[in-house]
Amino acid sequence: MGADLSRKRTIVLASGVFDLLHYGHIKFLEEAKKAGGENAELVVIVARDSTVQKTKGKPPIMGECQRAALVESLKVVDRAVLGYLSFNIGDVIEKLKPNVIALGYDQDDVMNEVRNCIRMKNLNIKIVKIDKFGEVAHYSSSKIKQKIADKSSN
Amino acid sequence: MGADLSRKRTIVLASGVFDLLHYGHIKFLEEAKKAGGENAELVVIVARDSTVQKTKGKPPIMGECQRAALVESLKVVDRAVLGYLSFNIGDVIEKLKPNVIALGYDQDDVMNEVRNCIRMKNLNIKIVKIDKFGEVAHYSSSKIKQKIADKSSN
Repeated sequence: MGADLSRKRTIVLASGVFDLLHYGHIKFLEEAKKAGGENAELVVIVARDSTVQKTKGKPPIMGECQRAALVESLKVVDRAVLGYLSFNIGDVIEKLKPNVIALGYDQDDVMNEVRNCIRMKNLNIKIVKIDKFGEVAHYSSSKIKQKIADKSSN
Repeated sequence: MGADLSRKRTIVLASGVFDLLHYGHIKFLEEAKKAGGENAELVVIVARDSTVQKTKGKPPIMGECQRAALVESLKVVDRAVLGYLSFNIGDVIEKLKPNVIALGYDQDDVMNEVRNCIRMKNLNIKIVKIDKFGEVAHYSSSKIKQKIADKSSN
């Protein structure tokens, strides 16, 4: 039986860079959607290239449009949107009106920003932290990049 | 309106390594599925690590189970299966009974094998060649690996 479409859907918001898609990303997004129950709609914010450059000190390997298109092509994802250039978490929350915000094990910096924003604006949004999936060696974009670099230098 | 489930589905077979998923893979799989019409079922064979080692002279970055799971997590894919260790195209065709076999622009070697097999066994299978999507610089696993290697050595 499908989800009841007459019922308002529970919007779950997740975010990330999603450069070099790996199975850890899929598991993160699946767990995020589960946190919204059976009527969940998963909206994923894909970080802009300029935001990645600013926060990580280097641009991603794949451009923002390709990363967003890849994320939206996943079964678990209902909608992928590019991050807002201002990168103000309050604006994002007001625009997308999520019921649940899911954060990954490596998103503690975003967690604090989101918590402050929810408290200051007195919003009714549930925050869910998703545990790490499997061994970081296999499910981490930076570890995958390292593996590629090591192989090419041998 | 959804597809008519009482009608026998048109099985489209596509294959590849799918190491470092990029948007060219998605477009290839979407075009492959289209070739089977609105009642198509897309089955994707994901190459075994040992087959990649044998044909490309080096192992893939991501293991076969992760690559297959990623491919199966795509909206466009109905089923992903790991390649058969023998890598005999005739056995694969007999087992999966496709109506259409879709081949990418860089799969001419497989194309010849498939053509010979279909002719020898006198099978009624349509072969469809899918054109390259976009610039190879953005939509090629080996170009992406090269970009990562170049960045790490700078």
